[in-house]
Amino acid sequence: MEFNVFASGCPSRPTLEHVTGRWGSLTVGALREGPLRFNELRRRVDGVSEKMLAQTLHALERDGLVHRDAQPTNPPRVDYSLTPLGHETAERLKALIDLVESRMPEVLEAQERYDSRLA
Amino acid sequence: MEFNVFASGCPSRPTLEHVTGRWGSLTVGALREGPLRFNELRRRVDGVSEKMLAQTLHALERDGLVHRDAQPTNPPRVDYSLTPLGHETAERLKALIDLVESRMPEVLEAQERYDSRLA
Repeated sequence: MEFNVFASGCPSRPTLEHVTGRWGSLTVGALREGPLRFNELRRRVDGVSEKMLAQTLHALERDGLVHRDAQPTNPPRVDYSLTPLGHETAERLKALIDLVESRMPEVLEAQERYDSRLA
Repeated sequence: MEFNVFASGCPSRPTLEHVTGRWGSLTVGALREGPLRFNELRRRVDGVSEKMLAQTLHALERDGLVHRDAQPTNPPRVDYSLTPLGHETAERLKALIDLVESRMPEVLEAQERYDSRLA
């Protein structure tokens, strides 16, 4: 079977969305440097709500990109880490994030030009 | 100035979202192969509404990733193409899309395992 994100019914499309969505991309990016606990992740992904982070992690775990490791301690300790496929994904995402961050001066100039044309 | 997508107030975050969002990633991916008119884009990005595609294109044009070329014909002909920065972005996005598409058998297996544990 050929997978194609441009076809609306293809199962690759929701997976791409889990990885590239608002919180998915930042969660995968944050785990790239090593395992984190839920609250550590929440601090790293500045602005995410508890509910949205939990949903994001479930989707990524279901897709096999994130591994959830629950230790039977009291209170339970839960670590999240990337699977090998999650790591490969994170590397490609990182290349995209690096490009966006490094080219922001150019983006901000374009935004100013665009807005001044409309003013 | 240092740009950092993990900081909620950083202007790089909305730009990353324009590029990676549900329709942004597919629009940039579709334009990677060459300029397209609005309706051609709409067919290529299967499932997008006219309104969402217009919003997506405006955001990408404002960020300097997409160039809008309106010819003064009757009816007016409008072509959308990637700017040089848009092309660089598209290449990195393509690497991510290729990975997701090629590893979908693994993702589908992970989803089955996850769902059977919950059943």
